[in-house]
Amino acid sequence: MTRFLSKYHAGMAPYVPGEQPRDKKYVKLNTNENPYSPSPSVIAAISAAEVGRLNLYSDPDCTALNQAIAHTHGVNFEQVITGNGSDELLAFAYMAFCVGKKAIFPDISYGFYPVFARLFGVEYQEIPLKADFTVDPRDYYSAGGTIIIANPNAPTGIALTRAQIADIAAHNPNNLVVVDEAYVDFGGESALPLVGEYDNILVVRTFSKSRSLAGLRVGYAISTPEVIAELNMMKFSFNPYNVDRLAIVAGAASVLDKGYFEDRLELIKDTRKEFAKRLVEQGYEVLPTCANFVFAKHPLLCGKTLYLALKENGVLVRWFNKARISDYVRITIGTPEQMEQYFVAADAAERAAQ
Amino acid sequence: MTRFLSKYHAGMAPYVPGEQPRDKKYVKLNTNENPYSPSPSVIAAISAAEVGRLNLYSDPDCTALNQAIAHTHGVNFEQVITGNGSDELLAFAYMAFCVGKKAIFPDISYGFYPVFARLFGVEYQEIPLKADFTVDPRDYYSAGGTIIIANPNAPTGIALTRAQIADIAAHNPNNLVVVDEAYVDFGGESALPLVGEYDNILVVRTFSKSRSLAGLRVGYAISTPEVIAELNMMKFSFNPYNVDRLAIVAGAASVLDKGYFEDRLELIKDTRKEFAKRLVEQGYEVLPTCANFVFAKHPLLCGKTLYLALKENGVLVRWFNKARISDYVRITIGTPEQMEQYFVAADAAERAAQ
Repeated sequence: MTRFLSKYHAGMAPYVPGEQPRDKKYVKLNTNENPYSPSPSVIAAISAAEVGRLNLYSDPDCTALNQAIAHTHGVNFEQVITGNGSDELLAFAYMAFCVGKKAIFPDISYGFYPVFARLFGVEYQEIPLKADFTVDPRDYYSAGGTIIIANPNAPTGIALTRAQIADIAAHNPNNLVVVDEAYVDFGGESALPLVGEYDNILVVRTFSKSRSLAGLRVGYAISTPEVIAELNMMKFSFNPYNVDRLAIVAGAASVLDKGYFEDRLELIKDTRKEFAKRLVEQGYEVLPTCANFVFAKHPLLCGKTLYLALKENGVLVRWFNKARISDYVRITIGTPEQMEQYFVAADAAERAAQ
Repeated sequence: MTRFLSKYHAGMAPYVPGEQPRDKKYVKLNTNENPYSPSPSVIAAISAAEVGRLNLYSDPDCTALNQAIAHTHGVNFEQVITGNGSDELLAFAYMAFCVGKKAIFPDISYGFYPVFARLFGVEYQEIPLKADFTVDPRDYYSAGGTIIIANPNAPTGIALTRAQIADIAAHNPNNLVVVDEAYVDFGGESALPLVGEYDNILVVRTFSKSRSLAGLRVGYAISTPEVIAELNMMKFSFNPYNVDRLAIVAGAASVLDKGYFEDRLELIKDTRKEFAKRLVEQGYEVLPTCANFVFAKHPLLCGKTLYLALKENGVLVRWFNKARISDYVRITIGTPEQMEQYFVAADAAERAAQ
């Protein structure tokens, strides 16, 4: 620790992103990336002509992108903000709506939530998931702080219904409910239709999963114009040009190519169905997933052993060294071929363990 | 204000970026963009193949880009961090090194410094520039906080020598000196050679000006490995994938194309010399600039009148409604043709004022 570091930040433990190893070619089923390339219209949008204009700043209002998003979801332009990935928007939400209040989220959820709390000096409370890893909305009644719910949840993949989200919002009229819908396109019920009905819902989305653009860093959030204006106050106090020119044109192109998007979603859902079925046949315990991953427990091997043996055999999955879930691994849904490779690696892992 | 907003942030005034009007085609000399396209090797680096891989996350360690930067400046890889523009790195520096301390900067400088202070709850002190708009290093001796110096300064363009920066660092051994070198390539003396000599210097740079990549959002910082590790602690607690895949490959390509970079710098410096000379001939007061802009005072028109009349005539410059500098406008150095258009618009402005 240098003598320059703020005392507040001493000993802070940052978020640990999934491994991005560079030493060996792995089948990467560990960071919930989409196995398919982005839409051809995205590739066309990032033209040499567009790159040639990178000497000019991007539009701080992200007009073209926010218009495309607003149009797609049938909301007003003033109800949309885009960020450098949804993580940045979550950070802005912590700054705007959690500082000086309490942040409340499930004990098992996206590992970044407590990290943001620590970074911004926000007190937080983790509410335990039920034994079956579901969220009980009643545990969030009159919660007394800003609620952050990943829906579907990660790493479980389990989703709340829209009615359950509405129930939580209705029982917390004076607090904001942030619904992190990173995975919702793969099968969850979005809370977006509730935004007109409740003024205390902020929906956060990402282009990283369903839109095959993890490497471009685009996320967005939708709420009332007033809540979005306050997120913009954070953005313009932190990094007004947070979304670059290429992300704006490519993001807009992606949103407008509905056919490609829906076709790839179907592919992934089909692969997931087949994969989960086969896992169950092999004796795994598999949580009911609405996301582009499954959270599964091997019949014999503990999570860590399975994770390490899979890695040894060229397949990366994510294992969490955390109470209640250390027997599970989270496996991203890739192509059907990649899921075959999973089983080959898992067979090798089982033989090695015998 | 919603009932959800943190009380701390009520009434906060965000940074106001330079106008990016969309209603009319202007000669944009207001945001210090480079008038020339990025290097052809940047355009080649953002290939369809690279765009096709955007479904995968970017490297959170930005290895290829940081290696290229480290190599160019002759420092170690561990001494480099890249960000989503240098604004993000300045924000990380405020979090890491200013929270709980005081931030100290000139009264006339980059308008974002007090905004960051307000955002992160940092007390700050503005030290007045001298009457000739220079920084006197002695005003910063034992300053008692983290010092932030833009060098060359904006919007004046005036630079401190490397020896003066060393003098400030030497007189503040227990505090960090952040040297914001956004404009240094256009003629300032960089503090980079001091990083080995003093352990309390953090140099922040951007690709937005000299490298023609404002629209891609790439900035970097160089210091001791220990200071950079603490900035990384902020980054990994805020947005681990802060730099996207295209920014990493294009940034690296830009750094490696030294010839293109230096040729364009020479062009801009030549244009600046001619432009400043002609302004002086026309009776303007022009501050000695080391940046890609000039800060100038018209012989007759006040800053606001000139700014508005230029805009009316299709040329955007930046005017600051601020004590001591409201008689000046900041004019970005564009192409020689754009500077011609400046004079045409200024002539029209003068005629209109008569």
